Amino acid sequence: MKRRIALISTGGTIEKTYDELSGVLANKVSVLDVMLASLELRGVEVQRMQLMNKDSLDMTPEDHTLIAVTAQRMAEAMGGVVIVHGTDRLAVSGERLCELGTPRAPIVLTGAMRPYELRSTDALQNLTEALVAVQLLAPGVYVAMHNQVLQFPGVVKDPRRGTFVKEPT
Amino acid sequence: MKRRIALISTGGTIEKTYDELSGVLANKVSVLDVMLASLELRGVEVQRMQLMNKDSLDMTPEDHTLIAVTAQRMAEAMGGVVIVHGTDRLAVSGERLCELGTPRAPIVLTGAMRPYELRSTDALQNLTEALVAVQLLAPGVYVAMHNQVLQFPGVVKDPRRGTFVKEPT
Amino acid sequence: MKRRIALISTGGTIEKTYDELSGVLANKVSVLDVMLASLELRGVEVQRMQLMNKDSLDMTPEDHTLIAVTAQRMAEAMGGVVIVHGTDRLAVSGERLCELGTPRAPIVLTGAMRPYELRSTDALQNLTEALVAVQLLAPGVYVAMHNQVLQFPGVVKDPRRGTFVKEPT
Amino acid sequence: MKRRIALISTGGTIEKTYDELSGVLANKVSVLDVMLASLELRGVEVQRMQLMNKDSLDMTPEDHTLIAVTAQRMAEAMGGVVIVHGTDRLAVSGERLCELGTPRAPIVLTGAMRPYELRSTDALQNLTEALVAVQLLAPGVYVAMHNQVLQFPGVVKDPRRGTFVKEPT
Repeated sequence: MKRRIALISTGGTIEKTYDELSGVLANKVSVLDVMLASLELRGVEVQRMQLMNKDSLDMTPEDHTLIAVTAQRMAEAMGGVVIVHGTDRLAVSGERLCELGTPRAPIVLTGAMRPYELRSTDALQNLTEALVAVQLLAPGVYVAMHNQVLQFPGVVKDPRRGTFVKEPT
Repeated sequence: MKRRIALISTGGTIEKTYDELSGVLANKVSVLDVMLASLELRGVEVQRMQLMNKDSLDMTPEDHTLIAVTAQRMAEAMGGVVIVHGTDRLAVSGERLCELGTPRAPIVLTGAMRPYELRSTDALQNLTEALVAVQLLAPGVYVAMHNQVLQFPGVVKDPRRGTFVKEPT
Repeated sequence: MKRRIALISTGGTIEKTYDELSGVLANKVSVLDVMLASLELRGVEVQRMQLMNKDSLDMTPEDHTLIAVTAQRMAEAMGGVVIVHGTDRLAVSGERLCELGTPRAPIVLTGAMRPYELRSTDALQNLTEALVAVQLLAPGVYVAMHNQVLQFPGVVKDPRRGTFVKEPT
Repeated sequence: MKRRIALISTGGTIEKTYDELSGVLANKVSVLDVMLASLELRGVEVQRMQLMNKDSLDMTPEDHTLIAVTAQRMAEAMGGVVIVHGTDRLAVSGERLCELGTPRAPIVLTGAMRPYELRSTDALQNLTEALVAVQLLAPGVYVAMHNQVLQFPGVVKDPRRGTFVKEPT
């Protein structure tokens, strides 16, 4: 039987599309549905929830709180939650989630360093990982990306290496 | 720190390449290295082991035993084992692995219904899933494919739906 | 103003799709529309005509005659004709077209050595070339493929090199 | 026998690559060689010449003159010239080329509205068209893009439609 999960999208590089008139990559249309359609999902039944579509550098404290509260609430009703998030402030939402206590089901954050629209994107790899990890993990808050699953609190982005690492304690 | 795993390739659809002179897809060159290069692997350190390159319909009982014995041995020395295998006889190797007892580290089988060379391949999804699942699972024998992780014994291919299912007990 | 052309599809490798149950590439669904949708066509207005969907090795003499007669007729009404054809017998249709005399508009045959469904396909390159060449060529019968435009009669497939060449006269 | 042509690259959207640290598309590395390697070129023998790597909005009058003079000179020695150019100022180089007189061989300008790094790029289509058109056209100055070949002088970019059009005379 499939596990019912919530997939909350908030924007970030993973969802950026290219505007040929201005020549820049921006958060306008969600490409998550295109990505989901390219995967075979036999383990989870996804309930999509488009909360916002922002570069995470533009997120306010209220945005992070809204994301954390929404995800915690979904984790009470569903078998798990995946959050698609900009990487620059992903850890802020992750820590906020932890402050609200251990969720009833696993909450897995993910994102991308290179938009889905690029040939060399890491978006599909990361989304694939999050959608499997959410089935295997114990309740808690995690980031799944680049073949790595790390548990909050204490996860930070390492901008030089372009990925997430666990802070030394 | 990265987990050291063995990646054993045995052939199957996932590795088939196209021969334009004969116009057919066959197991000749391993494309696993190309796939691995397209992923960002920060959780595992992969030790490649090319055991055979066969359509699994052509595997003999000795082939299945060789695969199972090799994987069990690698599971003693490493933090996990991923086996790339043709889907038609994947379950035979899975059951053989179980007969040898619970391995010391997780052993995850995977494969593909559509070769990597096809635009619509499921190979990258399945390989990505296996390389994450091997880090999260307890010691045991599994198949990871199509967003699903199933534990042996008792897993069979459902040829009509083109995926694996757990046999009703 | 756009030039009106007929695009006659007859099958061949260029249109082969993958059947995951049997594991073979076959001519079942036309992928020409998918290819056309991926191109920006501002020079021609395409009128699609699906004449047959055959591996050209299976074409009968009547098939070649039907293709030639149909294309010659379309060349009287339109500004040009492109024929998508299996490469193995493409030259037979090309010679048949010549026997019917010089067409009133250019007729350009094309095909592919590797199906569109493969990442490494030459289908898009060849279709792109045919759709430009048909606007630039004088009335006559041609094959456009692999960055080369050759005029019939006297063109043959070189199976060893996997392309077309002009026979020495 | 293959026609020897010069392929002059000057930059532009077609060659932009993605910098994941800054999150923007910029002209840093030439991806022309990657594109060329993905095409089967049996009609032309390409001699590469990397003249500059600039967004054409940043080109000075001296840049346009350098491009035009270089291309005219190459057209004396070779069977044709293809110039990869940013679309915003492509027409300036095209007109400058015309002021220098009819070249001895065809000179074909091309570019892209969406970088090669994007899945939805038009770069391969346009490069493919230019590399065929240069073999079929009479000496003169042209732009080949989006299934259209237009002759200078009198060609302008239509930024609203994202392509080139012939000015009404």
